Amino acid sequence: MNIGVIGGGSWGTALAILLSNNNHSVDIWVRDKRQMEEMRQHKENYKYLPGVTMTESISVTDDIAKAIFSKDLLVLSIPSHGVREVLKNNKKLFRKDQVIVNVAKGIENDTLLRISEIVDEILPNNPYAVLSGPSHAEEVARNMPTTVVSASIDKKVAEYVQDIFMSPFFRVYTNPDVIGVELGGSLKNVIALGAGISDGLEYGDNTKAALMTRGITEIARLGEKMGANSATFSGLAGIGDLIVTCTSMHSRNRRAGILIGQGKTIKEATESVGMVVEGIRTTKSTYELSKKHHVVMPITNELYEVLYEGKDVKNSVVNLMLRDKKHEMEDVIRDQIKNW
Amino acid sequence: MNIGVIGGGSWGTALAILLSNNNHSVDIWVRDKRQMEEMRQHKENYKYLPGVTMTESISVTDDIAKAIFSKDLLVLSIPSHGVREVLKNNKKLFRKDQVIVNVAKGIENDTLLRISEIVDEILPNNPYAVLSGPSHAEEVARNMPTTVVSASIDKKVAEYVQDIFMSPFFRVYTNPDVIGVELGGSLKNVIALGAGISDGLEYGDNTKAALMTRGITEIARLGEKMGANSATFSGLAGIGDLIVTCTSMHSRNRRAGILIGQGKTIKEATESVGMVVEGIRTTKSTYELSKKHHVVMPITNELYEVLYEGKDVKNSVVNLMLRDKKHEMEDVIRDQIKNW
Repeated sequence: MNIGVIGGGSWGTALAILLSNNNHSVDIWVRDKRQMEEMRQHKENYKYLPGVTMTESISVTDDIAKAIFSKDLLVLSIPSHGVREVLKNNKKLFRKDQVIVNVAKGIENDTLLRISEIVDEILPNNPYAVLSGPSHAEEVARNMPTTVVSASIDKKVAEYVQDIFMSPFFRVYTNPDVIGVELGGSLKNVIALGAGISDGLEYGDNTKAALMTRGITEIARLGEKMGANSATFSGLAGIGDLIVTCTSMHSRNRRAGILIGQGKTIKEATESVGMVVEGIRTTKSTYELSKKHHVVMPITNELYEVLYEGKDVKNSVVNLMLRDKKHEMEDVIRDQIKNW
Repeated sequence: MNIGVIGGGSWGTALAILLSNNNHSVDIWVRDKRQMEEMRQHKENYKYLPGVTMTESISVTDDIAKAIFSKDLLVLSIPSHGVREVLKNNKKLFRKDQVIVNVAKGIENDTLLRISEIVDEILPNNPYAVLSGPSHAEEVARNMPTTVVSASIDKKVAEYVQDIFMSPFFRVYTNPDVIGVELGGSLKNVIALGAGISDGLEYGDNTKAALMTRGITEIARLGEKMGANSATFSGLAGIGDLIVTCTSMHSRNRRAGILIGQGKTIKEATESVGMVVEGIRTTKSTYELSKKHHVVMPITNELYEVLYEGKDVKNSVVNLMLRDKKHEMEDVIRDQIKNW
């Protein structure tokens, strides 16, 4: 297949390598001319994926028209807040039979739209899938065994994407729940910030596991209200991605959280991480989604107050521990509890 | 309340400290006379919980009759394979209104019984609850914020236990699903061994997150067949406990797995860890449960072959990655897939 990868960050680069190793013909578009020349000359993405040699056959371009032209499938690997602009500016370059595979994670601020909704606004006729799961670029590029989910409302599209990406090191499961997969991938960054803060405050593994478990519970609660299947949040694109993001030093969101927990300002933390920290924007979107859909999300709420209202992080943890005594799954198994 | 803690391992000792800090009167029973004398004299459990000073008021005894006599509540904190013997030998010491709180994790080999079923055989009239969740003893003893689940078929018992254990650092949620909470706590040790092996083989965070996510999925699949609520496996006693066990160096099961992944024999690995590695026994029980209930459990199956049939661990990982292409949640949302 002919594949265009739109965006030359760490994930776009790793996927370009994976796809060319799967014997597809791959063009990768990078915005920055200097980065293009560097990648062409040295076969390495120094800034975003240092230490990994790119496959010879990958073609690097800064001409987005060339990356899109005559491709069977296009991978969107740009930061979530850039998706709308890139698609809008280049709308006319797309043919409507080209499959769009989104790998960006985030919820648009202001509109509160998921990426599939943005794509659907601009390219309403293109087949769409989202690829998500526990998959640090640094490890995929080094052939560490990895598993992800390909979700599409069209089963044939999900399976087409599964076939194209699957390799002996990269196992792809299909899933019909686009809403759940997109929300899982995006909202996990909020919890990863929280997990980082917990680490920065030098709390233990018990505390972080609690944050992650109660975090995915509140994400699932919101997701169900928005039309997702709650089972998705127990899967690779839900808890799986959350686990990898909250426990790995590869995660920028976690690293930013650690710095905030250690007392750095949000500005200092993001500058120090040096790449896009999706979770900070996503915390705002998630907070607003929880209000819009009337869903109780205590962890998101505390993080919003820490990030946007200057609340002391230590008070947040105390708040979460001292809430009313609760039944564990009051929303999930209300009927069972009634008869208990 | 008057509380007896049966078993002076790390978890029993940490819970004795927690309960006495909650102003309960606590006796702790230890089997070994020398350990008793050491704990009495130095107010520390050198062997199992070094570096933590025990509360003055905790009374240490090697006379199990004294630990059980006139207590309102008894905490069972002995290795799972010792529960039957200790209860049987001391059956006559129990009053039938004494609440039994089990904190041991495991499935009895040969009988394939959960701890509640063993307790029910020997003390059929006593109120019973199981306390489980992501809670390394070393951190609970140091007041790291921790969350657990108190499960009982009797709501009043679950809430009674919640009240007794809850503290500003130890948050207790109630749950009616005893089967799910017991299975989650026990079977997670199987996956923790696998996660350790993955670390020992120097695979990455992606691989481990995949193992954990697919691991809890197969545990939930078995659990549902055995009468558990699948939501429990997404909660603190399921994925929460799995996360902490698979990511922390406090976990003996993970540490044993790492050594096996590095090429040590099972005997060498358990000797090196020095405490009971529940997961090795539990892998056998889980394997047999999967056969008995006709549930497909690929990860358990591979681990059983590694631990009991001498299979090479590297081949196991390859097997898991190269299975047929799958839909992610074929068992959970079969109906949704049918219409996809």
